[in-house]
Amino acid sequence: MARFELVCTECGRVLAEDPELLVCPECSRFQESGGSVRGLLAVRILDRPELPGPGRMADPETLAAVLPVASAASFALLPVGGGPLLPVPRLREAQGMPRLWVKDDTRNPSGSTKDRASLLVAARAMEYGRETIATASTGNAATALAAVCAASGQRAVVFVPESAPPAKLVQMRALGAVVLPVRGSYDQAFELCGRACQAFGWYNRNTAVNPFTTEGKKTLALEVGWQLAPEAPDVVVVPAGDGVITSGVAGGFADLVAWGHLAAVPRLLVVQPEGSSALVRALESGAADVTPVPGAASVADSLVVEVPRAARLALARVRASGGAGVTVGDGAIRAAIGRLASLTGVFPEPAAAAPLAGLERALELGLVEREERVVLLITGTGLKDPAAAESAMPPLESIEPDLAAVERRLAGLHRHP
Amino acid sequence: MARFELVCTECGRVLAEDPELLVCPECSRFQESGGSVRGLLAVRILDRPELPGPGRMADPETLAAVLPVASAASFALLPVGGGPLLPVPRLREAQGMPRLWVKDDTRNPSGSTKDRASLLVAARAMEYGRETIATASTGNAATALAAVCAASGQRAVVFVPESAPPAKLVQMRALGAVVLPVRGSYDQAFELCGRACQAFGWYNRNTAVNPFTTEGKKTLALEVGWQLAPEAPDVVVVPAGDGVITSGVAGGFADLVAWGHLAAVPRLLVVQPEGSSALVRALESGAADVTPVPGAASVADSLVVEVPRAARLALARVRASGGAGVTVGDGAIRAAIGRLASLTGVFPEPAAAAPLAGLERALELGLVEREERVVLLITGTGLKDPAAAESAMPPLESIEPDLAAVERRLAGLHRHP
Repeated sequence: MARFELVCTECGRVLAEDPELLVCPECSRFQESGGSVRGLLAVRILDRPELPGPGRMADPETLAAVLPVASAASFALLPVGGGPLLPVPRLREAQGMPRLWVKDDTRNPSGSTKDRASLLVAARAMEYGRETIATASTGNAATALAAVCAASGQRAVVFVPESAPPAKLVQMRALGAVVLPVRGSYDQAFELCGRACQAFGWYNRNTAVNPFTTEGKKTLALEVGWQLAPEAPDVVVVPAGDGVITSGVAGGFADLVAWGHLAAVPRLLVVQPEGSSALVRALESGAADVTPVPGAASVADSLVVEVPRAARLALARVRASGGAGVTVGDGAIRAAIGRLASLTGVFPEPAAAAPLAGLERALELGLVEREERVVLLITGTGLKDPAAAESAMPPLESIEPDLAAVERRLAGLHRHP
Repeated sequence: MARFELVCTECGRVLAEDPELLVCPECSRFQESGGSVRGLLAVRILDRPELPGPGRMADPETLAAVLPVASAASFALLPVGGGPLLPVPRLREAQGMPRLWVKDDTRNPSGSTKDRASLLVAARAMEYGRETIATASTGNAATALAAVCAASGQRAVVFVPESAPPAKLVQMRALGAVVLPVRGSYDQAFELCGRACQAFGWYNRNTAVNPFTTEGKKTLALEVGWQLAPEAPDVVVVPAGDGVITSGVAGGFADLVAWGHLAAVPRLLVVQPEGSSALVRALESGAADVTPVPGAASVADSLVVEVPRAARLALARVRASGGAGVTVGDGAIRAAIGRLASLTGVFPEPAAAAPLAGLERALELGLVEREERVVLLITGTGLKDPAAAESAMPPLESIEPDLAAVERRLAGLHRHP
């Protein structure tokens, strides 16, 4: 019910809404084959919603007041968002950071932040009268679309690299999606999905090129702002693949500023794996666009992308926030899974452990001060990829069911804690 | 902050609180080796709390008003509960049941209902000054204890059958628990944990014998009652292993009646796998206690137990509710995973799919009418055991990244939908 307009993020042109219109027709004329996307559209909300009441953040009425939908009734009956902002006393002590928070976004229906984008996209498709929605995905976006469509009765068709973690593939299949594992990279699945949507008339949920994916994820920032009020975050740490969560979170904080709920957008600290770091390299070099990373690879499968689709928008918004980027090695990501889980109770997938590893790197580099108010965004549950967590653990040996065996094992733990 | 007393569930004696006191000293004299537990204690709340405000169900203050704790500050800073009660229009239509709901309890921090018990037990241990908490578990209770202790800084020691699903083992290890996989059954792990607690002075969270496990799970019933108000459920469908969720949910509805929030306790429909069905057999035969099931086995690992520990209490409370029990085969459980997920968006582990399979059986048997108000309790996420879900699916073949391959795959789906 929020009034809105679609704006080109490059030329600023306001465009009439059209379900076939995914990018600015003018700016996209400069699109290079295989490059990041030119002329992404953004949603501009024209209303000034009030602060939601306590416990009301994820209500359809609240969402309809801040998101571009015609009616709260367009949302699937599957609540998304509202996960806790945790004060994490033990992680604070371990890091020497008295104002650190963890936003637990693993509590969503399919266990990741991608549910936020899928909820809005499916609502828009409903309002456009489109029954089939398709997306490419490293795994989480596909599962999110499957979950929302299971609740709404729409059809989800998903293109994923065949190398996606097994738990993600099983989950999206159980949720009833038509799953097409592609012999190739995520980037190939992305191209194929776009062509299939044109060929078969499906609504295209591909991340970034569908403006409602970026817009849907902004609710993560709205919740952080509302939950932390009257305090305001100095730094928000975001894991990045395509740069859409980054762009959406930046947009959400900008909305909070426009609505008078927050004084300024916090600095965004973008974290990428060393093996898939196109955005961070561009942030460091000052480039307006990324250089593709052929053969990108990392244990953080959700962040693996050769060409971040939302690169130009994400880079501009991170810079506007005064933010920066850091890369982290796969070893640091694996180690951060257990450290975050055992100090907070929130078990992250590798991509969602990356913010902790990235924060530690940023502290070393002097990009963040320990006294600052910092929020880590935990964007997916560790249950989506337990093999990655296990790869950082020693083998686990069984014991006989007797007390002496318990004593021996405990004695061993005390020697090697 | 709720005033309470501990009552023997068999002789009705009121007992002074004592962290070492797990069962009634009188009734437990009749305990048979290997039998279900005699003289379980129950919590009786002496206050009459008000209905919580909307969105406030899982707040520490709300919990402290309905649970036996000295202070809301004793709870770990890891919100538990508050998952949605979903109206599931597509499942309603498929079942021909216009008043069917799904309570999504997969949204808890570790992804299962067991988080409710662990939150309360850890708070009690905190108030008793106990630092180490131990439990036996088929997997979910151990993970729940690990998550809560990670947030609170207490130490979790967990005994699990070595055959527990891999994702559960990785999750509890990442969360920092001392994990002791036992070469033996859950029942052997249970005995060993009890002896270890006595030997090492640990606080014993073993399910059923620790009265706060049953009491902690009652918040599941409180939430269902509050979320459905002003309507009231006729039937609540509960998956059962040890019978502790069953007992706790019955206790929660009884509290709602005592507090004037509900007119009557709904009928409890207990669902067990055919291979682990001690409670249902006793419900059918009219026995006051179970006959053990040596070698109990099922795809629903969370429900596999040779001797349900809370049998006597669960049987009495189900009968008092006017309820009944049904068994379901492993094939029906596997099939229900995808049916529930694809019609609601909630992906259940096998134990949590059992309620749907059980409901269908109860409809056949005439135990439930299609017009009744029925709530299915979805007690754990499918991400905890994706292999079980996958075992009901055909193989998934990859496609080449071209449009013709997409067309061929879709044509095949239309032939074999």
